[in-house]
Amino acid sequence: MSGVVVQKIERAETALLSELAACGVATLHEAQGRKGLLASYLRPIYPGAAIAGSAVTVEVAPGDNWMLHVAIEQLQAGDILVVAPTSPCEDGYFGDLLATSARARGAIGLVIDAGVRDVKTLAEMGFPVWSKAIFAQGTVKETLGSVNVPLVCAGALVNPGDVIMADDDGVCVIRREEAAEVLERAKERLEKEEEKRQRLAAGELGLDIYGMRERLAAKGLKYI
Amino acid sequence: MSGVVVQKIERAETALLSELAACGVATLHEAQGRKGLLASYLRPIYPGAAIAGSAVTVEVAPGDNWMLHVAIEQLQAGDILVVAPTSPCEDGYFGDLLATSARARGAIGLVIDAGVRDVKTLAEMGFPVWSKAIFAQGTVKETLGSVNVPLVCAGALVNPGDVIMADDDGVCVIRREEAAEVLERAKERLEKEEEKRQRLAAGELGLDIYGMRERLAAKGLKYI
Amino acid sequence: MSGVVVQKIERAETALLSELAACGVATLHEAQGRKGLLASYLRPIYPGAAIAGSAVTVEVAPGDNWMLHVAIEQLQAGDILVVAPTSPCEDGYFGDLLATSARARGAIGLVIDAGVRDVKTLAEMGFPVWSKAIFAQGTVKETLGSVNVPLVCAGALVNPGDVIMADDDGVCVIRREEAAEVLERAKERLEKEEEKRQRLAAGELGLDIYGMRERLAAKGLKYI
Amino acid sequence: MSGVVVQKIERAETALLSELAACGVATLHEAQGRKGLLASYLRPIYPGAAIAGSAVTVEVAPGDNWMLHVAIEQLQAGDILVVAPTSPCEDGYFGDLLATSARARGAIGLVIDAGVRDVKTLAEMGFPVWSKAIFAQGTVKETLGSVNVPLVCAGALVNPGDVIMADDDGVCVIRREEAAEVLERAKERLEKEEEKRQRLAAGELGLDIYGMRERLAAKGLKYI
Amino acid sequence: MSGVVVQKIERAETALLSELAACGVATLHEAQGRKGLLASYLRPIYPGAAIAGSAVTVEVAPGDNWMLHVAIEQLQAGDILVVAPTSPCEDGYFGDLLATSARARGAIGLVIDAGVRDVKTLAEMGFPVWSKAIFAQGTVKETLGSVNVPLVCAGALVNPGDVIMADDDGVCVIRREEAAEVLERAKERLEKEEEKRQRLAAGELGLDIYGMRERLAAKGLKYI
Amino acid sequence: MSGVVVQKIERAETALLSELAACGVATLHEAQGRKGLLASYLRPIYPGAAIAGSAVTVEVAPGDNWMLHVAIEQLQAGDILVVAPTSPCEDGYFGDLLATSARARGAIGLVIDAGVRDVKTLAEMGFPVWSKAIFAQGTVKETLGSVNVPLVCAGALVNPGDVIMADDDGVCVIRREEAAEVLERAKERLEKEEEKRQRLAAGELGLDIYGMRERLAAKGLKYI
Repeated sequence: MSGVVVQKIERAETALLSELAACGVATLHEAQGRKGLLASYLRPIYPGAAIAGSAVTVEVAPGDNWMLHVAIEQLQAGDILVVAPTSPCEDGYFGDLLATSARARGAIGLVIDAGVRDVKTLAEMGFPVWSKAIFAQGTVKETLGSVNVPLVCAGALVNPGDVIMADDDGVCVIRREEAAEVLERAKERLEKEEEKRQRLAAGELGLDIYGMRERLAAKGLKYI
Repeated sequence: MSGVVVQKIERAETALLSELAACGVATLHEAQGRKGLLASYLRPIYPGAAIAGSAVTVEVAPGDNWMLHVAIEQLQAGDILVVAPTSPCEDGYFGDLLATSARARGAIGLVIDAGVRDVKTLAEMGFPVWSKAIFAQGTVKETLGSVNVPLVCAGALVNPGDVIMADDDGVCVIRREEAAEVLERAKERLEKEEEKRQRLAAGELGLDIYGMRERLAAKGLKYI
Repeated sequence: MSGVVVQKIERAETALLSELAACGVATLHEAQGRKGLLASYLRPIYPGAAIAGSAVTVEVAPGDNWMLHVAIEQLQAGDILVVAPTSPCEDGYFGDLLATSARARGAIGLVIDAGVRDVKTLAEMGFPVWSKAIFAQGTVKETLGSVNVPLVCAGALVNPGDVIMADDDGVCVIRREEAAEVLERAKERLEKEEEKRQRLAAGELGLDIYGMRERLAAKGLKYI
Repeated sequence: MSGVVVQKIERAETALLSELAACGVATLHEAQGRKGLLASYLRPIYPGAAIAGSAVTVEVAPGDNWMLHVAIEQLQAGDILVVAPTSPCEDGYFGDLLATSARARGAIGLVIDAGVRDVKTLAEMGFPVWSKAIFAQGTVKETLGSVNVPLVCAGALVNPGDVIMADDDGVCVIRREEAAEVLERAKERLEKEEEKRQRLAAGELGLDIYGMRERLAAKGLKYI
Repeated sequence: MSGVVVQKIERAETALLSELAACGVATLHEAQGRKGLLASYLRPIYPGAAIAGSAVTVEVAPGDNWMLHVAIEQLQAGDILVVAPTSPCEDGYFGDLLATSARARGAIGLVIDAGVRDVKTLAEMGFPVWSKAIFAQGTVKETLGSVNVPLVCAGALVNPGDVIMADDDGVCVIRREEAAEVLERAKERLEKEEEKRQRLAAGELGLDIYGMRERLAAKGLKYI
Repeated sequence: MSGVVVQKIERAETALLSELAACGVATLHEAQGRKGLLASYLRPIYPGAAIAGSAVTVEVAPGDNWMLHVAIEQLQAGDILVVAPTSPCEDGYFGDLLATSARARGAIGLVIDAGVRDVKTLAEMGFPVWSKAIFAQGTVKETLGSVNVPLVCAGALVNPGDVIMADDDGVCVIRREEAAEVLERAKERLEKEEEKRQRLAAGELGLDIYGMRERLAAKGLKYI
């Protein structure tokens, strides 16, 4: 199954992506029914970045970053590289040279279930990465993987062209075909949250706003 | 045992809390005999915060943040929410809405043996959190827990009303009834440290300041 | 074997060290054949530091920082303390007082396969530390270890006087006697990288720059 | 997306399954191109079991085993329950009562990315389980999940009706539609292995049997 | 607070203990409201043991087993040693000599949030241990701890004299004063389970036995 | 540095090895001053094996078991393969075919800081393995490593020809040149232990046998 590069994939519309990016991971994941989160061990290499883009998926062998070079040719503006090794590995697959190349081809970030290096330079470049490890360990270029095939990254299924949203809360995948609907629900959610925020800030209680007291009592909650 | 909300708890005096906050976790933990630290996997979501407050404890079911709403009603000015799930869980129990509500009721921070989300907003709000994970994963509201009962959080027993001190070094619990005495010893310690710091900065050795050479020799230390 | 302090060790030349520091961990580790990295769980307590120095090694008992006081007497300008416990431990062996003392004797940083504390003060002092944990847990002074003996720190063998390079990518050890040659190769590598960076930034592909297409095809890569 | 029970799924033929079971996880995973392994943290609760069956997938909430009762009704002879929580959890979702029920409906085993309990009784029953944890922690019955939807279990995508092979080496998933072909290749592999085993047992070297010496030399291997 | 040996503690009645031992960890933990489990990383060093006894608690320094010798003098027939280090440690605190001594004084097992060694001999002796690690690493005898003080072991509060139940599912603590009542509820539970087991074995579904179908439908479960 | 096979190494005498094997890991590690243990995460794939042999070291690339074939040619009767990847990896480097080959060349076991597979067959063969993981994941044969060079395995330095002792307590390395002396001290230790065992079994206390009471009192231990 490895050794395949799918060159043509469907991507979400650019306008949709920028609107999704403004919603954030926590809201989008709620808006699509609490699904799609990648594992919490994926952490940003620097705080504050928030991006949404189309997944270009890369399946790599452990300790081998050859396919990243192959994948970069497939990038378009607004893409996010999503990299998963075929067995657990924390080597530093990606550094500032690959980031320079990926950015030149349009990539806006990287999500990798493995390690990265040159993180200081990556931060200075403003090239955001969510990774499992920061590790200088170099890799070889010997074994084929695949580009733009469905893969599991940090516990979540990612199809090529799916929408990836990443911020300080982690990384979420949204199916491309569901993205527009998820955005609608996310916006509604954000509106309601704004109203609730003001009431909560004024000292109202969630117990009252959400009408929880009766159900808590029915479950048997006792105040003593 | 779950399903209980204790409404009236004893708290430490406010004046005491602000003095304790100035001492820091490392010093307070030493001053009370090297006890009371919560596990090192609790990390602040942003650096630089240092708070001391009274614990309002919250026992929650895994993946269920219902009791946080209940707990917020019990908060007073200067309180710190201390949350522990009944089995290990890293879901995002707490985000910016709950923080807005908790702050409106007087809370100055959160210590949680689980996950949080909206960490960028929490940092912008300056609402400090020490957590086991950052994870956007949402929770349900189905199962009762308890508020203001003694619980084990990150390996340490916390009673409601105990003093919680948290800073970049982690989190420490001090029994309410011991807090005044711990503060005295902490101040003495800090005074002595200041004197030692100056001597050490001038190049004097701990070996000499603390008179260690003889005991080292007696134990058999060999210089070669 | 414990209970030994080796007082005289060979160190790398100062000029060499400052040139090495400018190369960074990722480059040096590649330049010496992808070896010498300490485990990725060693993380800097604050971002941005980059140091190269001579290792003064310290073998310590779990929960016992006595030998750090002994080691500080052995420090010279430009040294880096490299500390490893004889069994896994995450206690806070080192804080601002020891940092003050170590700096007064010339140390420029600490690498420790255990915990540290007072990290806020250490950051304010600009005393860089790479550690396995941040943990306020205090230690005792009861059991001998050794200073300036070869030891394994975070999975890598470190001899006293070896060069330690540490930055945001982690920590690397370079044998003292190989340091000059590694520096030469690192410089060559950096020059070539600079040229490649410009070509990649201009949109050229690694596939072409490195001439990978033929070998990928020979391995059977299929574009579909 | 949750709250769905798919009642009719395609399953692999029984004859195929028993032949696959005889091949073992390591061989089947190789025969399908080194893919399909679930994470190595899934371990059998007792050694020696080796089963192949059709996956009945169960998505559960953390700390909530309600859907296991729903799933059991969907079981047929030869099925294997494949359970994944929607966020990481190690609670004991499954014990001897559920095993009794599952077996009565035809199930031959359980693969669960969470915890189980009553393991002594399960071993006495000969009901094999591969789990992430052994933990007595009980669960609630409050939140819906789904049965027979595609899910990610321990890092691998499992579709309902896929073939699950589990033995002391771990757990492997084989797509139902590829199972016959994988079996063919596995058998060929086993035949070749038998021949190789005899030659290796007689002292012949893999270096010679596989003709590796030349390529090793070409790569630069040096004997000294 | 360290450096204390409490010589006189209350213990549960022997008759009660043997009845509790027959119930098992999973049942007892359910019978007392799903509380009291120690962390799942505590594992038996050999399968099949099931014991209930009175806790003699031992607080030890990391890498220091001195207090175990002190604790052994406090043992009575039917006691279980419960050992917790003051900071995380996996050293081998306990081996066959200590087991011989502890048994001679009446101990029936050990629960330790750290490591043990000589596990083959311990298994041959039939002296059961639940530990965090198996590690030959030796310890020193330099630092005081305490015996028979309340402590947190593997995440659970254990008071001296509390009942400890341990089997292949893990370890559970039951407050001494609640033990009789917990036993009653456990017996009722076991009776009901037996009846359910027979119905489930006959092919009846939990969905029907527990009357779940209506509530599932009300929550919105859909069969497709 | 990789790509080297050292063909001639010094080994310990066979008679010494069989005597060492009878001492066990815990005793040998104590006898040489509490050093030399490999990390506790190395676990035997089946209980009860206890071997001592000469280390043939193998440095391998992540996910690449090529060098194991090279190493097998270097084996002599009584050798133990000691395998370490150049970066963390848990792939299944070794299975029953390699075991058959290694045994045919004289190997008596394997210690590997990575994964193995075919563990059921290995157990049936009685070929003992201590590994970090059990994982069926296959490996490639693309990248050179080295044979019989010093390496760090599971946190301990192992030189080719060093003595490896492994049993249910873990794995210990003894320098070849120190082996005879360590054996002497181990025998003395075992003799003394036997005498102590009898006294402890008779109910005497370690407190008295080792004369600890006075020193405990001097440290301030209080009985209450």
